[in-house]
Parts: sequence; structure tokens; C-alpha cells
Amino acid sequence: MMESLLDRRARLMGPNIPTFYRMPVHLVKGEGVWVWDADGKRYLDCYNNVPHVGHCHPRVVQAISSQAGMLNTHTRYLHDGVLDYIERLTATFGHGISQAIMTCTGSEANDIALRMAQAATGKTGIIATDATYHGNTMAVSQLSTRKPPIGGRWPNIRLVPAPDSLKRADPDGYVFAGHVAQAVAELEAAGFGCSGILLCPMFANEGLPSLPRGWLAPTISAIRAAGGVVIADEVQPGFGRAGSHFWGHDKLGFAPDVVVMGKPMANGHPVGAVATRPDVMAAFRNSFSYFNTFGGNPVSAAAALAVLDVIRDEGLQDNAVRSSAYVAARMANLSHPLLRDTRANGLFFGAEFLNDDDQPATRFCADLVENMVARGVLMNVIGAGRNILKIRPPMPFAIKNADFLIDNLHAALKEVKISE
Amino acid sequence: MMESLLDRRARLMGPNIPTFYRMPVHLVKGEGVWVWDADGKRYLDCYNNVPHVGHCHPRVVQAISSQAGMLNTHTRYLHDGVLDYIERLTATFGHGISQAIMTCTGSEANDIALRMAQAATGKTGIIATDATYHGNTMAVSQLSTRKPPIGGRWPNIRLVPAPDSLKRADPDGYVFAGHVAQAVAELEAAGFGCSGILLCPMFANEGLPSLPRGWLAPTISAIRAAGGVVIADEVQPGFGRAGSHFWGHDKLGFAPDVVVMGKPMANGHPVGAVATRPDVMAAFRNSFSYFNTFGGNPVSAAAALAVLDVIRDEGLQDNAVRSSAYVAARMANLSHPLLRDTRANGLFFGAEFLNDDDQPATRFCADLVENMVARGVLMNVIGAGRNILKIRPPMPFAIKNADFLIDNLHAALKEVKISE
Repeated sequence: MMESLLDRRARLMGPNIPTFYRMPVHLVKGEGVWVWDADGKRYLDCYNNVPHVGHCHPRVVQAISSQAGMLNTHTRYLHDGVLDYIERLTATFGHGISQAIMTCTGSEANDIALRMAQAATGKTGIIATDATYHGNTMAVSQLSTRKPPIGGRWPNIRLVPAPDSLKRADPDGYVFAGHVAQAVAELEAAGFGCSGILLCPMFANEGLPSLPRGWLAPTISAIRAAGGVVIADEVQPGFGRAGSHFWGHDKLGFAPDVVVMGKPMANGHPVGAVATRPDVMAAFRNSFSYFNTFGGNPVSAAAALAVLDVIRDEGLQDNAVRSSAYVAARMANLSHPLLRDTRANGLFFGAEFLNDDDQPATRFCADLVENMVARGVLMNVIGAGRNILKIRPPMPFAIKNADFLIDNLHAALKEVKISE
Repeated sequence: MMESLLDRRARLMGPNIPTFYRMPVHLVKGEGVWVWDADGKRYLDCYNNVPHVGHCHPRVVQAISSQAGMLNTHTRYLHDGVLDYIERLTATFGHGISQAIMTCTGSEANDIALRMAQAATGKTGIIATDATYHGNTMAVSQLSTRKPPIGGRWPNIRLVPAPDSLKRADPDGYVFAGHVAQAVAELEAAGFGCSGILLCPMFANEGLPSLPRGWLAPTISAIRAAGGVVIADEVQPGFGRAGSHFWGHDKLGFAPDVVVMGKPMANGHPVGAVATRPDVMAAFRNSFSYFNTFGGNPVSAAAALAVLDVIRDEGLQDNAVRSSAYVAARMANLSHPLLRDTRANGLFFGAEFLNDDDQPATRFCADLVENMVARGVLMNVIGAGRNILKIRPPMPFAIKNADFLIDNLHAALKEVKISE
């Protein structure tokens, strides 16, 4: 008997390997906003932000192929590619951010960002929210709440209650800032001091709450008063996904000291980066000997540069604005007894479901996602209760794709039984 | 006036960016064992282990181009690529290592390996040598001696004196094992316990000492007696470089519990991996929720698989044996007042220089490297005293390339003045 792909994964990769969906899909081909499985079934990709400018975009593939055939080496030799890219990238930032380190993953970039905060402040305490994820290194995974680290969480970490625009009223952000100020005080009392705060400007993993511009101002003030550094993790909001702004922090209206980038940066080629002001970079570079063999290599730089070119030449940020408004309007017309809220932040959408007892409709959302997959639409869930649809398509997502998504969502909402 | 590339780097990347050579070379093209700079000057690459099967090998480039144009996504969907690769990779290991996690860098892989040791033992103490480098994450860089981490080195780290076959006699490895046993005792007394030891089976950064097979046996016994895990960092020795064996640990004759891979794995495409036995993998997977977005993606798997194919189809391991013997024989005939030892471990060569007072001839080696670069041969130095030539060419390095290297080295040794 043939060994199934799942059995083969368990044999070669071990137990507890994450997969999506009860019947994990076996993808073999991608193009634009579409992917195909091994049986030839087509799915509209409403989940993946890694193929940012569309699966297998020919300009990115060409950039990778061409440079891989010419030269691929590291930045201890001189090369224009990494410089051309950092120059184009940092031109998108305001407030003095003009330098960057290229890495291979967002995790590596966040791992550096934590050390930048340490180097710039001489302190080691760090604050994040209690429903977040910033990456998988030993240090960065200390900021996740999924499983307690072996030996316990490091004592210099404080996780504050995540914002929740549905259940906890905090219209101006003072409640959140209060939790942050308390964490600062605790870190100072414990002798670590506050090196900074690490936040996603969309609070995407926290459930994509709808927050007004300026909402983080009291929090930023609390961090600045403590001498800390503000780190914006733009892995999810960045590169135009926020629509009206190229960066999530500009949309929410705050000026980070450090910006972290990852997933969408090179359309799937392993590229991340951390950008900052020259003063913070100098503090880091004078405190740590950092070198990343693959980071900023000519192929990675070419792939990342092609992504910036495509975003510009195909007007993908404007497309995000248009498609966002269209999806948001159609989602507002969705109707279901458990649906409590729909929300949009550029090309990132959430729909929150609660049971009659106001508890997260976790099971219903899981059933809904499975129903959508069967219909040929890939999506998933977010939020501590995993009761918020996570809809985050590639950037070329068009009006007709939005219709396909919402038409199927209407039908699925009629079909899926409320089982809880 | 035109901004120089070095000035542009300082402006965009910050201060203290590592470069090679007093006049850093500006490379634009690579092919096989050769690279070219922007002025068209050709260099024999005797340094880079990343372009393992040769710069821009057409089969690797083709594998990357082809898969990048077909599909590039993550392992939460099913795909054959990552499984085909892990199956081929783990078939090269003995002693029960049959599972792997693919990452994007050797640093990420070592960062996981440290947590595997923690998960398998429930302890947190870790041992490495005092002249090593295993990567750049916050956790892994604690094992480097280059700069003290901010806040001091973590108390669960012990760095033992590196082996030195030239100056410290330790023919059977009992002196080294004694230092390791002392570190184990200290970690146990401090309450951390010993989770394991992390070693390069070539001790490459330590200066490539000539060690007989079985030399590590007393050390392994000490670690096993303490219940610790043995981690082999194969980033430098692995994938056939050791010549007689595909892996450095097989050549030195010990059975690690965990094997870490990186640089040469996909010829420059950002790929790393950590392989282990199912019991260690299960302990890790049950203790940590680990997922790496880019790790094991179809393009990375295709690139890595192409490298294994080329090593096999072009007989590169046999080539390493032949070229190693040839270079070693010609290096043994080198003559210079400061030259104290030449050594080879597969396609990795060292030549150690000491001044008259038996101190490291650091300046002379630096001058020698610069002279070789001017002659069109890229190499560098290793060892705590940076007085050992580091010669580590791509795997297709042929006899005629060896002649070019050694002829130029003869000439350079005659030309470079002893200035110290």
C-alpha cells in the first residue's frame, strides 16, 4: 500500500508538524491569486501574504533566475544589489530610517531588532502583547504565548493584554497604554529596564482590531518616557498591504525606531530585513559582530527589488485600496446569527463570530473554513479564540476575485451548521 | 564626485560592516571555481564553501528557476519536494538519524539544535569551544567569543579551550575531554545541568587541528555520562568536503544525536537544516511549536536536491579526495621561516605561521592573503590568532586549480616581507 503524504511527513519530519485544514491540501502549482492541487482543483488564495505580488510572478522569477546564473555570494564582497535594494527600501520610510540589515527571515530580523533595542538603551526588558507571534528563534519565541518555553519564560519579557475592539472598550488606547506603563514599571523594578516594545501595527495575530489613527500615541509616550525603543513588526502589514499607506505604522500614525520585514518581501524567496536610524544601527553595530552569510546576497536583493518594481508598476497599493473597499462593503452585508463584526485593514479582512454566550465560536469558524476550502477558497482563522476569519490574499486580488470570495462566503454561511 | 561603494555601504548599512581584504573586491560574476570583479579581473575562489558545487552551477540554477516558476509556498500545505529532500538527506546518515527540519540558515538550525538538546534532556546548560562560531541569532551568538553579549554571557554557557594540535599536546583527546567534564560539573553545580555540547567535527574555526579518528571519544563519553546530547555542526565539514566521508562526524568517528547543516546545502540559496533521531525530534516537537515559513519550501527543496544530485553525478566527493591529497603533498613542500605546519582535511587546508617568539604571525598572514588576492587567489585566515591560512575552495576544485593556488603561494611566500 502506498504511504500517504501525511504518513511520509510524520516519518521524515516528526510529530506535530503544522498543517492547514482537516484534509490538508497538496498544492502543485500557483499563478497570480490562484493555486492548484494535485488533482487539478483550483483554489482562490485568500490566505497567503508570502506570494505578495502573486504566485510565481514572472518578473520575480526572472530576477531570481537571471541573478542566480550570474553570481550569488555574500556581502563581505562588494556588490551593488544589496545597496540598490536598501536605497529603494529606505526611501519608503519617513522619520530618519535610512539603514538596513538584510536577513533570510522575519524571525532573524526580529531577533536583531531585540538586540538593537538592547544596544540603543543598554537595557534588556522587552514588551509585546499576550496574543502575538513574532517568529521562531529561541529569543523571539519567548514573545509567543503558544507554549511556555523550557525553563520558563525569560524574566525580562512582559506580555500585555492585546487590544480587542469588540469586547474591551479602549477608544483612545489609554487602557492599552496603561498596561504597557505597568509593564515598564515592573521591568524597571526588576532591574532589567525597558529596552522597548515590539508590535504589529495591524495587531494582525491579535485579531485585526479596528483602531483609529493615533491610537498608539499614549503607548508610544510611555515607552519614550522610559527611554525605550519602538519596534514595528511590518511582516504582515507592510509593502502596501495596508492600502492607504505603504507601511502599517504610517497608517496607524506612529514613528517607530526600528522596522522589521519578512514574508512578502521577496515573494517567497527567503528574505527579511530590519531597518532603523543611523544612531540605532551604530549602537547595534558597535555592540555586536553581526554577519549573515545569505542575507543581502545578490539573488535575494534582486528578488526583493523585483517585488518593489512590481508593486509600483502594477499599481498594487492602489489595487489594495480598491479591493479593500469593495470587500469591506460586501462583507458588511453578510448576515449570520453568530457574526458580530467584520473589519478590513487594506487587503486584510476579519469576520468575528461569537456563540450565544458571547464566547468565541471556535468550532463554527473551523467548520466554515473547511467549507470554504471545499468550495475552492483558502483562508484561515486568527485571534486568541481562533474565531475570526483571516482573509489576507496576495496583492493582485481583484474585484472579480472578491466576488468569488464573498459569493462563496454567503453560501457557506447558509450551509455550515451551528454545532456548539 | 562619485560616492564610492564603501561609502555607500556605510551610508546604507551602517558602520562596522564586515568586508574581506584591505581593498575589498567587487565581484560581479561567478562560474565554477572562478569569480570575476567589476574590472574583469579573474580570481580563483579558494575560500567559499557556499557555492559548494561551483558558482552558478547550471543544474542548481535550473532547479531554482523551474520550481520558482511553478509553485513556492510553505510546508503547512503538502508538497513532495521537502519530503523527497529529507529522504535523500537522511539516507546519508547512520546511527538512527532519520528526520529533519529545514530552515533558511545554519544559524536558525543551530538555534533549533540548542532547543532540541533542552527538550531531550530537560536541562539548559550547553558547552562549546572558546574559539568557535556557530551563528548569529541572539541565542547562538552567546557561543561566540568575539564580543561579550550585552548584559554578559548567559550563565548556562561554558566555553572550553579549543584543541590545538600545534601547541598543546593532546594526542588522544583526554585533555579536551577533561575541560568538557569540568564544564559539565560546573553546569550541574549551577543547577542548569548539561543539555549537550555543540562542536564542528573539523574544528574549522578553531584552526583545523589534525585530529586522529576517535579523538572525541572521551569527550562523547563525558557528555553521555551527564545525559547530554551531542550536536555536530556540519556547516563547514559536511556534504562531502571531508573527502573520505560525506560527513565530518563520520570521518572523526563519532555518532552525534543532532546534525546541523547550512552554507553549502543549496549552493547559495538560503537553506539550512537540523537532522536528528525520532526520539529527539519528538521531544522537540512536543515541547515547542516550531514553524518556519520559508523553511522547506518547494524552491529551497529543489535547490538542495540539485546539490545532492550534482555531488553524486559529478563525483565531487572523490574529487575532494584526489585534490586534497594533491594539495596536501604540494603544501608539504612549501618552505618559509615562519611556516610551522600545513594541514588538510578533505577540501579544507590550513597553513600555520608563527613568529620567532612562537607568537601568531597575524600581520604576516594578513599580508600574505592580500598578496594572494592581488595574484587572483581568494582565501582568508582562521584561528584565534588569525595566523592560519584558510583555504576552502568549492568542491569542483581540480588539480590544475591546485597548481595555480600552490604556484602562487610559493611566489607570494618569497615576496611578502616579514614585518613583525
